[in-house]
Amino acid sequence: MKKILVINGPNLNMLGKRKEVHYGSLTLDIINAKMITLAKELDLSLTFYQSNVEGDLVSTIHTGMDFDGLMINAGAYTHYSYAIADALEILDIPKIEVHLSNIHARESFRSNSVIASSCTGQISGFKENSYILALYALKNLLKD
Amino acid sequence: MKKILVINGPNLNMLGKRKEVHYGSLTLDIINAKMITLAKELDLSLTFYQSNVEGDLVSTIHTGMDFDGLMINAGAYTHYSYAIADALEILDIPKIEVHLSNIHARESFRSNSVIASSCTGQISGFKENSYILALYALKNLLKD
Amino acid sequence: MKKILVINGPNLNMLGKRKEVHYGSLTLDIINAKMITLAKELDLSLTFYQSNVEGDLVSTIHTGMDFDGLMINAGAYTHYSYAIADALEILDIPKIEVHLSNIHARESFRSNSVIASSCTGQISGFKENSYILALYALKNLLKD
Amino acid sequence: MKKILVINGPNLNMLGKRKEVHYGSLTLDIINAKMITLAKELDLSLTFYQSNVEGDLVSTIHTGMDFDGLMINAGAYTHYSYAIADALEILDIPKIEVHLSNIHARESFRSNSVIASSCTGQISGFKENSYILALYALKNLLKD
Amino acid sequence: MKKILVINGPNLNMLGKRKEVHYGSLTLDIINAKMITLAKELDLSLTFYQSNVEGDLVSTIHTGMDFDGLMINAGAYTHYSYAIADALEILDIPKIEVHLSNIHARESFRSNSVIASSCTGQISGFKENSYILALYALKNLLKD
Amino acid sequence: MKKILVINGPNLNMLGKRKEVHYGSLTLDIINAKMITLAKELDLSLTFYQSNVEGDLVSTIHTGMDFDGLMINAGAYTHYSYAIADALEILDIPKIEVHLSNIHARESFRSNSVIASSCTGQISGFKENSYILALYALKNLLKD
Amino acid sequence: MKKILVINGPNLNMLGKRKEVHYGSLTLDIINAKMITLAKELDLSLTFYQSNVEGDLVSTIHTGMDFDGLMINAGAYTHYSYAIADALEILDIPKIEVHLSNIHARESFRSNSVIASSCTGQISGFKENSYILALYALKNLLKD
Amino acid sequence: MKKILVINGPNLNMLGKRKEVHYGSLTLDIINAKMITLAKELDLSLTFYQSNVEGDLVSTIHTGMDFDGLMINAGAYTHYSYAIADALEILDIPKIEVHLSNIHARESFRSNSVIASSCTGQISGFKENSYILALYALKNLLKD
Amino acid sequence: MKKILVINGPNLNMLGKRKEVHYGSLTLDIINAKMITLAKELDLSLTFYQSNVEGDLVSTIHTGMDFDGLMINAGAYTHYSYAIADALEILDIPKIEVHLSNIHARESFRSNSVIASSCTGQISGFKENSYILALYALKNLLKD
Amino acid sequence: MKKILVINGPNLNMLGKRKEVHYGSLTLDIINAKMITLAKELDLSLTFYQSNVEGDLVSTIHTGMDFDGLMINAGAYTHYSYAIADALEILDIPKIEVHLSNIHARESFRSNSVIASSCTGQISGFKENSYILALYALKNLLKD
Amino acid sequence: MKKILVINGPNLNMLGKRKEVHYGSLTLDIINAKMITLAKELDLSLTFYQSNVEGDLVSTIHTGMDFDGLMINAGAYTHYSYAIADALEILDIPKIEVHLSNIHARESFRSNSVIASSCTGQISGFKENSYILALYALKNLLKD
Amino acid sequence: MKKILVINGPNLNMLGKRKEVHYGSLTLDIINAKMITLAKELDLSLTFYQSNVEGDLVSTIHTGMDFDGLMINAGAYTHYSYAIADALEILDIPKIEVHLSNIHARESFRSNSVIASSCTGQISGFKENSYILALYALKNLLKD
Repeated sequence: MKKILVINGPNLNMLGKRKEVHYGSLTLDIINAKMITLAKELDLSLTFYQSNVEGDLVSTIHTGMDFDGLMINAGAYTHYSYAIADALEILDIPKIEVHLSNIHARESFRSNSVIASSCTGQISGFKENSYILALYALKNLLKD
Repeated sequence: MKKILVINGPNLNMLGKRKEVHYGSLTLDIINAKMITLAKELDLSLTFYQSNVEGDLVSTIHTGMDFDGLMINAGAYTHYSYAIADALEILDIPKIEVHLSNIHARESFRSNSVIASSCTGQISGFKENSYILALYALKNLLKD
Repeated sequence: MKKILVINGPNLNMLGKRKEVHYGSLTLDIINAKMITLAKELDLSLTFYQSNVEGDLVSTIHTGMDFDGLMINAGAYTHYSYAIADALEILDIPKIEVHLSNIHARESFRSNSVIASSCTGQISGFKENSYILALYALKNLLKD
Repeated sequence: MKKILVINGPNLNMLGKRKEVHYGSLTLDIINAKMITLAKELDLSLTFYQSNVEGDLVSTIHTGMDFDGLMINAGAYTHYSYAIADALEILDIPKIEVHLSNIHARESFRSNSVIASSCTGQISGFKENSYILALYALKNLLKD
Repeated sequence: MKKILVINGPNLNMLGKRKEVHYGSLTLDIINAKMITLAKELDLSLTFYQSNVEGDLVSTIHTGMDFDGLMINAGAYTHYSYAIADALEILDIPKIEVHLSNIHARESFRSNSVIASSCTGQISGFKENSYILALYALKNLLKD
Repeated sequence: MKKILVINGPNLNMLGKRKEVHYGSLTLDIINAKMITLAKELDLSLTFYQSNVEGDLVSTIHTGMDFDGLMINAGAYTHYSYAIADALEILDIPKIEVHLSNIHARESFRSNSVIASSCTGQISGFKENSYILALYALKNLLKD
Repeated sequence: MKKILVINGPNLNMLGKRKEVHYGSLTLDIINAKMITLAKELDLSLTFYQSNVEGDLVSTIHTGMDFDGLMINAGAYTHYSYAIADALEILDIPKIEVHLSNIHARESFRSNSVIASSCTGQISGFKENSYILALYALKNLLKD
Repeated sequence: MKKILVINGPNLNMLGKRKEVHYGSLTLDIINAKMITLAKELDLSLTFYQSNVEGDLVSTIHTGMDFDGLMINAGAYTHYSYAIADALEILDIPKIEVHLSNIHARESFRSNSVIASSCTGQISGFKENSYILALYALKNLLKD
Repeated sequence: MKKILVINGPNLNMLGKRKEVHYGSLTLDIINAKMITLAKELDLSLTFYQSNVEGDLVSTIHTGMDFDGLMINAGAYTHYSYAIADALEILDIPKIEVHLSNIHARESFRSNSVIASSCTGQISGFKENSYILALYALKNLLKD
Repeated sequence: MKKILVINGPNLNMLGKRKEVHYGSLTLDIINAKMITLAKELDLSLTFYQSNVEGDLVSTIHTGMDFDGLMINAGAYTHYSYAIADALEILDIPKIEVHLSNIHARESFRSNSVIASSCTGQISGFKENSYILALYALKNLLKD
Repeated sequence: MKKILVINGPNLNMLGKRKEVHYGSLTLDIINAKMITLAKELDLSLTFYQSNVEGDLVSTIHTGMDFDGLMINAGAYTHYSYAIADALEILDIPKIEVHLSNIHARESFRSNSVIASSCTGQISGFKENSYILALYALKNLLKD
Repeated sequence: MKKILVINGPNLNMLGKRKEVHYGSLTLDIINAKMITLAKELDLSLTFYQSNVEGDLVSTIHTGMDFDGLMINAGAYTHYSYAIADALEILDIPKIEVHLSNIHARESFRSNSVIASSCTGQISGFKENSYILALYALKNLLKD
């Protein structure tokens, strides 16, 4: 069973209270529960981590060395955290960048991801379903 | 059965002959065949269209009025075709932007998608699997 | 009787289905009919052409050599088609740039017209009436 | 009979002495006379105002509250007077931006109009005929 | 005998009617005739193609797979057609970018060629002789 | 009793008729009356000046030499009037920049104040209360 | 009694040791004491928080859901922390951005606040008095 | 005897009270007196005008039609008044741009003069002596 | 014996696992051991601190008040942490910026250090030897 | 027999030791020998000059007044030497800009030639053959 | 008698052969002769130096330590030679920047002088008379 | 004994007479003497070269082929001399960029080094000690 690290960054602990049009109406717990259901089906084991602290996200990404794959929604850090980008760069596993809202269709600063070049691919704009799609993507990448 | 329009833009008819590191090694025909297999499973019907001509892509997007969902890999037009963006804007159905390579991790001009703000979401970097993920995404969006 | 070439670019075949606030509610056929009525009054003969294909617009502009005046709504190509600008440059007749919406009051990319410097003047923001005003303008320019 | 306010900004009192290729050869008085002739035909009453002082133009625009429509050639202020833009923004009547020369085909600073987003539409490049076309445009807008 | 594909883009079918200072006074037919004369001397066979349609140029470049060398004057597409650049990228033969006028000595947008990085070299500014020099260059490159 | 000069720039004579969401619903007279009430309490004497003319604002700022403090809402001139900035620079008294709307949360051109570097501080976004807060601020600065 | 959350960001725990010309000479404790005095007068209760850690500031802003108003001096994070901006965006209470120095009159990077568009208003440049003014402002906003 | 128009713009009426390092210590009256002395020597007659109002400067420049030469210190308007630039453009006489301080050695916005391209030459940085040098320059230009 | 604070920022705890071409092959512990050896020779005492958390680095820099000198490798925070820059600014001791790789010879974002203007000097590109050189530099600076 | 001046700028004396992929493997002497061979055939006489000193290149270009044509590879000076551009501007003979590597396909700073607008045409990317092609081009230009 | 160093940079040895509209028709020798005549009158002694070599200009500026004043026309180096700017910075005497043409009214690159901030003042646009005016200016500056 | 080439660029012959805050108070001769002392200790032989002429620096760098290591303070050429960068690129030995002042903490143009990407590392801001540190660095690099 492949091990997946699921990392959520700043303000994602507030899902359910943020603007529904961008982020959907579900809480992070409910999204995680949905992911667990699919993960079982896909024979993947999930470890969840959320923090608002950039440096703690960096440290947790370092633990990715013990995982087979990783998905990260770095929240606003996506747009300026070269520290997170450098942390992801170190890992040699599939790494998927996930966004609830379509970051390419909002304020201009959001369309730039400084972590993208350290990731395998990006899924953006499907609300909670972005995480679900990332599981499918990881399943497929780990097959190769 | 929901009807999906699958549009591919310039140079995608040459898949299999382009740089494997970015685009994978499969031809468009093989990718389409894989999509058909999954579509059946998901109870979706697919219509394929490929052209190198920007204006023909625009006209085909207009026919999207008779479909329930659309996915488009606009190739290099992604980065400058406001005509395609305007065409997508007209449609009121789920529209997914798909890329084989991670456009956010290549030359800087490729990280800007002028059609993104006319689309529901973007999937980028999973080679042929980007199309597969888009099918899952459309299935989910059409459920809502 | 002076001969006028009326050229419409991408997505203008979809008028009537586009956002009313920008483009008005009339179809291109209805607008053309209105133009014909006024053209008779002004003793002008009109030839209409619409295409979504940039290169076909270029070729049609070349036929402008057999006309006394030209009006063009190049749609989204207005903002990046140097090919259309070069084509217009070749002609030695009055050439009027027309826009349904006020392109200077929308997204920033729309306020830049790369074809403007190849045209006599620009009329922008009066919905279908922009075409009507262009007829009056051509009538006047051909008087000189 | 609809009341129209016609405002001319800096240096337009010098028409007839400015570069003919850009501004034509007529004085402002002659242009105004031509406008009066057409206005009668269109059943519009015209009030003229010209000033070189930005703030006086602002104050005059405020009087637009007592008019049915307005046309303004703000001269060089077009390119930097956010004060005039704010003044126009206050009015709830059709407002037309007029230019003698094609501002989009000259020095780059002239192609940017900071007042455009406060106006209904823009007519540019037809020399004195730009004012005539604006009258037709206002007549049409006030019909609606 | 080596096979060379000679591609001309938008507005080059109008040579002879464009500004002589930039483009010279010869028609494309006359230039092609001159090329044929030299090609015989150099033991090269030439195939000519001209189109105003970006996508058709893309498709024709794809046929370059059956040639030994290619020269292209992409006209205005030079400055924004990443689709043509991507098409050229696929080919593994000598590819020469040709311009009649010195694109580095005109409007600033013309000094940027987005297709240059997909080509072997660039020859710019010698009017019809640019094509002649490209033949010499290809002859030399195919010798290696 | 300390003397305070209160200066209002272009379009502020129209308060009460401008967009309520940005500027509140009070007229300038009512705001001034509120200020007078507080000024008495704080033992400050107020002199009011409003003009739409940049140069008249400059001249009035020069009279600031006879005052103990100054507050200015330069309206749209805030964003480009280096003349007003130079005038403020000359004075050696506390100078407060006031804005009704939060200029840092609107169109991008409004977030830049060219007069800020000539002022002691800036209060922005509290509608009419911005003036009230400036009185408190001046009272405090004149205590020092 | 209304509850106010007072948040101070990085390096503000060092007040009293920073450059007096920008930040004044008081320590944060002394400033807080001054605020408490006024808060009593205004019938407001204050809760203080200071941290150098961006993510801890984000988490504390989330607790703002239990307060009636908030004031924040985000220190250097003001200029790049979109994470803090997103956290502020979630709250539906009056939020005031406070700065000791006039950020618009220093190095250019300091004049841009990425959190401004998530706040009600901004007070900048009055040293410790900026906090005092923010209390008056909150009192007024909570009256409405 | 040649007639010279000497125009001073905003804040120059405050000379003697502005920063000595940039502007010197003399008042405008004293500078004018020095100019008159030299003018007599050079057989030139001088007419002085100072205003803080951009539009009044524009109008006064128009009167330059009755003069043989002009010198202007447009103060801060130098950097953004395209209205003044347009006014100067109309005149067909020698026009000299004068600055007390070296505008090319101060804040970056001051190094750009939008009126320069409408003037014969520029003299900058010699304090009151800039005006004196401009008289010598005009004398010489009117000799030709 | 002079006391030196040695601070390492994000991802530097992963040395030995990062790209050798940029960062060398030694772990941070080994580098620290090498530094201790030289420090003894130079009669310097070293205190080491590493964290991935920006705010904790800020707090640790504050403790620099009890040291005679400081060296910092701020990792990716070098390029955007104005909070760290502000913290360094407070200290009145020699402060040296250290980088393993030559940050001026990599991606463009890495060539900009926002903390440089708060430091005495910068040593970049000598892998672990950058730290060694910084010790020599501090020794010298503390001699003065 | 027409006289041609062949000028080579900085670092070109090191050909044969520079990166072969960009510059080929031949020394400048060998290239010159090849040129002499062709020049005889074309009835041209060649004068060679190489210097690393910008000003000496300028002086040598001045001697171009005694030649019928000129070709120059200005090396890195191509990208910033306005002095060389000004020198070339003075000459009234055909002037050809030559580059061994395709400067439009390398680092972005290399794609800008400040001397291009002073030259007749540019040949770039054919290694030593660029010089050969330039001889053919000059022969043709001198025929006219 | 005050000693003045007169320095001319690249291409100024070619005066008389350059474009008359920008540079006038006189040779440098004739201009120097005119300067000598006036210098005698003003009791100044002149030393002339011209070079096309940036570094030789730098070295000559260093000799300015033995002079009372300096004037320099750095030609094209004006726009990029920070080396010359640094050399001028060292001198503590009046230094005047001179230009024959009005550099602020030509191509945009020419309006930026990197040496201006190292000079006392700038005189631009009076052809050979710019040097004459600089003599007057130096005379005056050395009086102080 | 390893041979080191020590190169100093423009204005460094004037050390001792330049601003002490940036450059220290020692002459180049004294710095060289200090270097010789340490070089003996480190068993390195030094060859010194200084020139103000860019091209002579280029030529001297070429002689680096006969050395084991190089250090260069290119002075102002650091910021624009691509010719020097290209010369350094050719050499296959350790190359160290040295600066007396901290170039990253001064005017913005000084923070960009165009020669950095051709060098091994950079040492900046330690006044004459920068050269000393570079010797230690070279010693270490030549050990490897």
